[in-house]
Amino acid sequence: MSTENSTRIPLSGKGLGAGTATPQTVADLGWRLLEGEVSLPAAVLRDSALRHNLAWMGDFIAAYGLELAPHGKTTMSPELFALQLEAGAWGITLATAPQVRDAYRHGVRRVLMANQLVDRANMAIVAGLLADAEFEFCCLVDSVAGADALGAFFGERGLRLRVLLEVGAAGGRTGVRDPAQAEEVVQAIARWPRALALAGVEVYEGVLKEEAGVRALLRRTLAQFQALRAAGAFAGPRAILSGAGSAWYDVVAEEFAAAAKDPGVQVLLRPGCYLTHDAGAYRRADARIHASNPVARRMADGLRPALQLWACVLSRPEPGRAIVGLGKRDAAFDAGLPLPVLHHRPGTEAPRAAPEHWRLGSIMDQHAFLDLDAGDDLRVGDLLCFDICHPCLTFDKWRHLLRVDDAWRVTGVVRTYF
Amino acid sequence: MSTENSTRIPLSGKGLGAGTATPQTVADLGWRLLEGEVSLPAAVLRDSALRHNLAWMGDFIAAYGLELAPHGKTTMSPELFALQLEAGAWGITLATAPQVRDAYRHGVRRVLMANQLVDRANMAIVAGLLADAEFEFCCLVDSVAGADALGAFFGERGLRLRVLLEVGAAGGRTGVRDPAQAEEVVQAIARWPRALALAGVEVYEGVLKEEAGVRALLRRTLAQFQALRAAGAFAGPRAILSGAGSAWYDVVAEEFAAAAKDPGVQVLLRPGCYLTHDAGAYRRADARIHASNPVARRMADGLRPALQLWACVLSRPEPGRAIVGLGKRDAAFDAGLPLPVLHHRPGTEAPRAAPEHWRLGSIMDQHAFLDLDAGDDLRVGDLLCFDICHPCLTFDKWRHLLRVDDAWRVTGVVRTYF
Repeated sequence: MSTENSTRIPLSGKGLGAGTATPQTVADLGWRLLEGEVSLPAAVLRDSALRHNLAWMGDFIAAYGLELAPHGKTTMSPELFALQLEAGAWGITLATAPQVRDAYRHGVRRVLMANQLVDRANMAIVAGLLADAEFEFCCLVDSVAGADALGAFFGERGLRLRVLLEVGAAGGRTGVRDPAQAEEVVQAIARWPRALALAGVEVYEGVLKEEAGVRALLRRTLAQFQALRAAGAFAGPRAILSGAGSAWYDVVAEEFAAAAKDPGVQVLLRPGCYLTHDAGAYRRADARIHASNPVARRMADGLRPALQLWACVLSRPEPGRAIVGLGKRDAAFDAGLPLPVLHHRPGTEAPRAAPEHWRLGSIMDQHAFLDLDAGDDLRVGDLLCFDICHPCLTFDKWRHLLRVDDAWRVTGVVRTYF
Repeated sequence: MSTENSTRIPLSGKGLGAGTATPQTVADLGWRLLEGEVSLPAAVLRDSALRHNLAWMGDFIAAYGLELAPHGKTTMSPELFALQLEAGAWGITLATAPQVRDAYRHGVRRVLMANQLVDRANMAIVAGLLADAEFEFCCLVDSVAGADALGAFFGERGLRLRVLLEVGAAGGRTGVRDPAQAEEVVQAIARWPRALALAGVEVYEGVLKEEAGVRALLRRTLAQFQALRAAGAFAGPRAILSGAGSAWYDVVAEEFAAAAKDPGVQVLLRPGCYLTHDAGAYRRADARIHASNPVARRMADGLRPALQLWACVLSRPEPGRAIVGLGKRDAAFDAGLPLPVLHHRPGTEAPRAAPEHWRLGSIMDQHAFLDLDAGDDLRVGDLLCFDICHPCLTFDKWRHLLRVDDAWRVTGVVRTYF
């Protein structure tokens, strides 16, 4: 994979060190985060946690005999795509045509676009990539109008687009709600035999919050898949059955594992947040998975938070308040505010655990308000490390993230393309 | 100003047309948004509204005899910085050292950094820029620790840093809370005469929500400023007095206008969101300003929303629901969800006003849920144009925004550097 490793990083933007570098030479520069050699706030990826999470998910997926198509919209980072493909992922899942184009530009050649492809400019982007016969691609369809628009567009260009029927939950997001809607869409796809190929069935169960509902949706999806398979509706040697966001992948694995025993079926799971994990919703999901899933229970400890933010205390204007240089421009805030986990005073040996009662009370665009006790020893210039509560909306605040070793020395940089 | 207009846009990322282009040649390509020539979702800036807002704020500031240092953190776009400087802005306000570096790299030579400068890597960034004698810069200080750290760092390098004393509100963000704290900080600055120069006083009133409190804070700031001026504490021929975010700039103008009559005083106002405005908090502020400020009352209509988002209907899975290809990755959602204002069906003449009852009920990373009536005529493939409710957190979701004329033809592209 070409990941443009020789591209010069112009040191534009935030969270980088001084000087200039390329992704390959960043490690040689040896920026030490704790020594004031990185502009804060900075987003870091702990190498040890990334390696652990990659191995953990690889083992989990292998235990069920499934394949991993990790959602790339989480990170949109070619270096992290490469890491996952090298660890055995089938391909990368993406959410939009521009995301697919950027992944392709950085060497990804197998993409499941887990979204409808509707507007003409986005169809044109995909059509441009399909000119490469080595590029393997499929996207979703859930309406007759969508199937007809794709059929007309790709037919005119002499291209054949592989599509998955999307199954959805009542009251949920995209996807057909019942077998009658499914049948209409499948018939529409069949009206464009030269332009469209039905390659399988897809579901996103993450819109649901309760396990019983998730299992019911997955079983309805599986029944739809088996009915279409029995009717010979799928093109190609292997039909795709795909589900799983980052919260319910264990349940999807349990429900779809039997189908994967059929050599004519390929089950693709799409969690994306496992790679960096978090200290919010996915930590709670991880606890549930380890309590209930038999494979996870046999494995060592679960996923580890790999994505963290470092920031500096800018002001101590009142005894119970510190103002930190970290804001909505730097961290997800929709699923819980960043959580302070380490406190470091430059010049001292190593960071210490932040007291449990230190919590962000609120956050503005470029500042966060930390509540603490009047007597707490936290000074202007001290550094704080935060866990985050939503990887996707943290990644898209950064164009560069730093890979760091366990001593917080920078070992590399990854770029994002949002 | 060099704004790298010949830089090739690689057509990486979202919200652009097909092909390749440079900012200068985008207009020649003539992408027509309504004809499916722009990948959706896309963020657009309406030229006519930008021009109106620039002129409006220029007239307002001139009427009070003040100067404008618009906050650049809102847009972080060199093209939009240039537009404001060409329209007469004194300089650009910024929030962080990396923002300052990027503005400098694109030709900005006068910066008020409306933030504390604390960590060493950020000081190093600023020190690097101060090597250019033509670069005019100041930042804030609100603590003895901060003043001493700056004094030591810049003194070691033989540089003199201009600083403003930051005044803050009790229970608010950064800034000294009372004259005793102010005196301590001023004395600390005075201990580093070769490294630090006290250039004035700054306040950010936007943390307060009520006008009476805002006026009280501004009067305390003015009193602090006048006391320091009477004591000869300021270096340089003109002392800076600066306030104003985008919600209370009228009140700041009223309170600080008298001070600006003194030729030894320079009053800098820093609103940033006026340029694009919004349909949320700033529209409400605009209504208040036009109801109460005598200068605004004499002027024509107020600011206009210039930043809008176009997106495509991806799915109509249920009669009362449409799924739109627009998400938290594309729009601010912390101060109100995007508001649908126009509905366009490709192939028809022109967009029509969206019905009042069309509202987003919720939003996910890449999708929005539009609630409508079962009989409403909205189809898969239709386009919707949205007003936004917070410019800052919308801008930072885009690396390119398209400038458009009133027929939605693309006339240019602006880049952002977050």
